[in-house]
Amino acid sequence: MNTTQVKAFGTEAADADLKELQINRREVTAKDIEIDILYCGVCHSDLHTAKNDWGFTSYPAVPGHEIVGKITKVGSEVTQFKVGDIAAVGCLVDSCRTCSSCAQDLEQYCLNGWVGTYNGEDKHLGGMTFGGYSEKVVVDEHFVLKVPSNLDLAAVAPLLCAGITTWSPLRHWNVTKGSKVAVVGLGGLGHMAIKLAKGLGAEVTLFSRTPEKEKDALDLGTDAVIISTDENQMNSVAGKFDLIIDTVPYVHDVNSYITTLNLSGTLVLVGYLGGLEPILNTVPMVMGRKSVAGSLIGGIAETQEMLDFCGKHNIVSEIEIIKMQDINTAYERMIKSDVKYRFVIDMTSL
Amino acid sequence: MNTTQVKAFGTEAADADLKELQINRREVTAKDIEIDILYCGVCHSDLHTAKNDWGFTSYPAVPGHEIVGKITKVGSEVTQFKVGDIAAVGCLVDSCRTCSSCAQDLEQYCLNGWVGTYNGEDKHLGGMTFGGYSEKVVVDEHFVLKVPSNLDLAAVAPLLCAGITTWSPLRHWNVTKGSKVAVVGLGGLGHMAIKLAKGLGAEVTLFSRTPEKEKDALDLGTDAVIISTDENQMNSVAGKFDLIIDTVPYVHDVNSYITTLNLSGTLVLVGYLGGLEPILNTVPMVMGRKSVAGSLIGGIAETQEMLDFCGKHNIVSEIEIIKMQDINTAYERMIKSDVKYRFVIDMTSL
Repeated sequence: MNTTQVKAFGTEAADADLKELQINRREVTAKDIEIDILYCGVCHSDLHTAKNDWGFTSYPAVPGHEIVGKITKVGSEVTQFKVGDIAAVGCLVDSCRTCSSCAQDLEQYCLNGWVGTYNGEDKHLGGMTFGGYSEKVVVDEHFVLKVPSNLDLAAVAPLLCAGITTWSPLRHWNVTKGSKVAVVGLGGLGHMAIKLAKGLGAEVTLFSRTPEKEKDALDLGTDAVIISTDENQMNSVAGKFDLIIDTVPYVHDVNSYITTLNLSGTLVLVGYLGGLEPILNTVPMVMGRKSVAGSLIGGIAETQEMLDFCGKHNIVSEIEIIKMQDINTAYERMIKSDVKYRFVIDMTSL
Repeated sequence: MNTTQVKAFGTEAADADLKELQINRREVTAKDIEIDILYCGVCHSDLHTAKNDWGFTSYPAVPGHEIVGKITKVGSEVTQFKVGDIAAVGCLVDSCRTCSSCAQDLEQYCLNGWVGTYNGEDKHLGGMTFGGYSEKVVVDEHFVLKVPSNLDLAAVAPLLCAGITTWSPLRHWNVTKGSKVAVVGLGGLGHMAIKLAKGLGAEVTLFSRTPEKEKDALDLGTDAVIISTDENQMNSVAGKFDLIIDTVPYVHDVNSYITTLNLSGTLVLVGYLGGLEPILNTVPMVMGRKSVAGSLIGGIAETQEMLDFCGKHNIVSEIEIIKMQDINTAYERMIKSDVKYRFVIDMTSL
């Protein structure tokens, strides 16, 4: 298969900084689209992959799965896009397309294993996929999204991961006008959960451990902020919420949030992979038919639905634009939660 | 308020056997129904209450919340029942009737506290309510159920707790023809879950730790039995079930069951109140949008729906009839799981 060398930014070891690398991109096949990357959001998964925090990184690794760019080539069988279109790519670039999950447009739950935009198994070139910290990317048309023309392109980039990861559970659990939604954690995911739930007409409360976040949350449109370490404040929202989107990425106690769920309410974990400690108490779950659930990113069709919704409601991410060369500093700041709320790389800097 | 003394069987201390007692029943008020009790099922909650296993028993305690009998008096405003009708009473005899849960016909989740058929706060006479191990019971019409005429009355009794406790989640999670349902545990609740899920047209699998239960489960209509300690058998049903009804009443590991849920599947706990140990792993939940939930008994309207369904499909519990005087021996046998699948007291023995 013919390939082209392009510039990228990546890392060759868990303890090494990211630096400029050369990677290969395949020539477009009949169903492929080549995109000149304009912006790439910086997700916590990028950092975890670069540093091999999850133990399955292959090096060299090129992160980036919040990609917005301009189409430079289309294959002969591409029907939905043309050269010059603005397009986006999120966390997935391939899946089996035949299993029951894929048949339901839920490729993120592909039973035969979906292919991540980076550090996934590249079925075309062998080896691993390289992400959006690069000049170009080549992706099957099925996994390419259309971007509403009225939105700021840099601020669209985080919708491709932080946006869809919160949109998918909001939609699956039928959030609509008047729904009572709470969000745990005000970071990249949390701030998008607030904006999207508000866009859907929900009454939105933020749970935060730090009172300093109250003003920021209200500025984002949150109706109320509850300091989760304040027992009186927690009691004031007992039995209130239809859905809680829990974006916290590390181990934490969910029991106190469960008591704030309404009858038949659900707390959905979108950020944390691991054991639930302290142990989950089933009493309030049984006594109020409450659920604890998980949710992963979103499918391609619902990602397009979310982008179209954001276009209609003028919703984008709150971002800080950086140069590609500043990525290592950005990672250090992310570890300290020093970003409101997402770094986006201006890829012309590469 | 006028009362009548009636014979009952109960206990005056956690470490005492049950014995004959005299209790008071109120005269029927305008909306009340007096029932001459014919049969009363024996639930594990009876035993836990008698022995104060949960720490909130008031003595003397008269258990029994699976009641079938004949109406002997009706109040002046009773409209749905008449003297001579066969009627049933389950786990609830009162609730606030005004909260959002009651307004949804889900009195078992009454936000102001429902009144249990026994060991609940008696709003009429003060003190605690006395259950079905007695000659008569007086209950507000709203909490009285009609019994299909084609069913064996003794075998109907356990439907009032074991039946509705499994019916409610089967209906809430939309089990229908072709649904793939698994049941954990083959006791009073488990055997009803199998019969009701089969009645709804589901394909039903029993998870059991003991191969000896296989024949019994197949006799009850189960399509398959999976020995949960056999890794190969567990792997053979990975990702299979839409709903798992977990009836196990003691702490147990649910993680291996969660891997057998299908995309967006739910494991619902109906028997266990306490901490989930070993700790719940969120990875399969996030990777497959799976839920862990709880569910409590059922509302009055859905209990009537369940009884009508059982009448139509000729579903009753598998029972062993005992005399009232044998209750202490029956409790001992229940502790050893030596009952298929529910004791029912012939109340003429009292």
